[in-house]
Amino acid sequence: MTDFGLSDHYVAAMKGVILGICPQAELVDISHEITPFSIAEGAYTLAQAWQCFPKGTVHLAVVDPGVGTAREPVVVSMMQHSFVVPNNGLITLVLKNSPVAKTTHITNNRFFRTPVSDTFHGRDIFAPVAAYLANGLLPSRFGPLMSNTVISEFEKPKPIGPGRWLGVILKVDRFGNVITNLDWETCGRIATKPFQLKIGRSIVKQFCNTYGSAQKCKFFALKGSSGYVEVSLNQGNAALRLGAIPGLPVDLQIVT
Amino acid sequence: MTDFGLSDHYVAAMKGVILGICPQAELVDISHEITPFSIAEGAYTLAQAWQCFPKGTVHLAVVDPGVGTAREPVVVSMMQHSFVVPNNGLITLVLKNSPVAKTTHITNNRFFRTPVSDTFHGRDIFAPVAAYLANGLLPSRFGPLMSNTVISEFEKPKPIGPGRWLGVILKVDRFGNVITNLDWETCGRIATKPFQLKIGRSIVKQFCNTYGSAQKCKFFALKGSSGYVEVSLNQGNAALRLGAIPGLPVDLQIVT
Amino acid sequence: MTDFGLSDHYVAAMKGVILGICPQAELVDISHEITPFSIAEGAYTLAQAWQCFPKGTVHLAVVDPGVGTAREPVVVSMMQHSFVVPNNGLITLVLKNSPVAKTTHITNNRFFRTPVSDTFHGRDIFAPVAAYLANGLLPSRFGPLMSNTVISEFEKPKPIGPGRWLGVILKVDRFGNVITNLDWETCGRIATKPFQLKIGRSIVKQFCNTYGSAQKCKFFALKGSSGYVEVSLNQGNAALRLGAIPGLPVDLQIVT
Repeated sequence: MTDFGLSDHYVAAMKGVILGICPQAELVDISHEITPFSIAEGAYTLAQAWQCFPKGTVHLAVVDPGVGTAREPVVVSMMQHSFVVPNNGLITLVLKNSPVAKTTHITNNRFFRTPVSDTFHGRDIFAPVAAYLANGLLPSRFGPLMSNTVISEFEKPKPIGPGRWLGVILKVDRFGNVITNLDWETCGRIATKPFQLKIGRSIVKQFCNTYGSAQKCKFFALKGSSGYVEVSLNQGNAALRLGAIPGLPVDLQIVT
Repeated sequence: MTDFGLSDHYVAAMKGVILGICPQAELVDISHEITPFSIAEGAYTLAQAWQCFPKGTVHLAVVDPGVGTAREPVVVSMMQHSFVVPNNGLITLVLKNSPVAKTTHITNNRFFRTPVSDTFHGRDIFAPVAAYLANGLLPSRFGPLMSNTVISEFEKPKPIGPGRWLGVILKVDRFGNVITNLDWETCGRIATKPFQLKIGRSIVKQFCNTYGSAQKCKFFALKGSSGYVEVSLNQGNAALRLGAIPGLPVDLQIVT
Repeated sequence: MTDFGLSDHYVAAMKGVILGICPQAELVDISHEITPFSIAEGAYTLAQAWQCFPKGTVHLAVVDPGVGTAREPVVVSMMQHSFVVPNNGLITLVLKNSPVAKTTHITNNRFFRTPVSDTFHGRDIFAPVAAYLANGLLPSRFGPLMSNTVISEFEKPKPIGPGRWLGVILKVDRFGNVITNLDWETCGRIATKPFQLKIGRSIVKQFCNTYGSAQKCKFFALKGSSGYVEVSLNQGNAALRLGAIPGLPVDLQIVT
């Protein structure tokens, strides 16, 4: 998974490096259309996808606005899955419900492609490490354990008053549905209580159980299949109309 | 093949499920950019692609506006190829010239991913069944034979008068060429007779053998490589100018 | 690599043909989003990608405005890599720094898919030849050696006066950066000397070492990671603002 898109050669370069090290690798794309630099969207997409893959899978995910800076490349090992990622919060939502994980700081440059470029760690650091993991090397070969795995604040909505939370847009899907980080445990009362959900300059006040039951041309909130509050527009593109993009804040006030 | 697009995690989720059941599967994407819910476009694309694959291939195709309703999931077996599809007409054009096929109603939920979600049968029903078929299980393992395979009306143009047919747009290709279901057997006389082909508010009256011989800036009809009448615009995007999208009707009158 | 896009069935048809001949092939997409018919962009993308793949890789690349005309299909063999391409300049930048290569004219039609269509040599000629190469057949099986491998003029910028070169746009990347064929060996003096770089109606006069150091809202030139002069716009899309697309000329005057 990357934010590199599919029109440039970047993804293919990473795959070529992997196959040079692990020729029997079965390569599966999660998505390369993550909004550039959107760690929130990447975190959401990775968290939705990984659980469908078999144990032993190596997940290589690069959304890395800090390439070339001090953020560490890491291997996160959890439930017999491995995640090779920059330590910038991209792993946040994978860890949300499964906090027993080990994080290894990737420091052993004998596994890197040389010379390591300043701008393409995906090809030179992350891809080869993922390939060696797929070959069966243990995470400990790549460096020491570390304890400060970065968990981003979009992990959960932030309480900012009685019945009020500040959240963030995680993802806009193909149909323009706006997926927030307002999780159902925290905010599920919107199904039965009056509420105001601010996105940009718009305020959503209606809740619907299904797309079909919504009135045409009105924004409404619903419980998405991933367990988060989503905002939709029946037979229309909610995100376009709201100006919603991943990373923007949302403000929910539930009247209790 | 799906209409899920490549930016979300949906396709990857299906692939993860398949590889968990059939690790040696070789996964090939036909297209995930089918216009959402366009069974006609999906049927056309599947029919163009499947014949290039070797015998034994399992074709998994999900364009499924009726997910969650009563349309059956089925396996269609034909000429040593298997098609795992919703029984909603998506198989129509595959069967057009090869009607000897068996259809199995998928009912045996021991092969499903549980719990089966209401909205993502691609991951929970279609993907695992396709994977078990790739593992060599016979279609009969998944349920009983059924006889009412849905064939959509876009299978062939509908005669509506002397020399007149009502057809439908199957596909708009990357260059804006508009591919209809007006097949050459039925409508090939447009190459030699005057005709009027209505698409939206426009009327196409010109036939050309090749793109190169067409006058600039005029719409023209030609015989496409798939054997259907196509409408093109030399050095321009015919579909954009005509407002053509898959599923819209076209009306052909041949003067005889 | 093709310019076929991912929404149609064309790429899948080629992959089906390959797997029918070489079932164990590991298929990797470089890009199918090359600007239609842009040999310059295809040449650039192929040259960037191939070096990351292991020896023995067969690279199948089709950007072929001349399909159906006299341009030869060829196999170019170099450094234990094979390239199956139309002989139209697509191989130009792969050969730039590695001129020791052999070119085989593909003439032996016993390896073609029959009947060979006029418009889809990718499926009927290039894909099967690539698959047989992957099976281990030697290039000599497909036809005779030939000497006139087409090298396009975008291989290097053309000197047109003292300190002045005519170049071409090779690629517009996802972020709107405009990558030219002005290579650093020839034009690197722009880092230290005053210069004028004309693209369309605009003139770029500023050089920056990094994206971050550039003034907002001004175009600037920099040395891209691939060793070519690029034009960028800080926090904006340079290509959109400049009207830049692959194949357009650029005119560089360095004041010496």
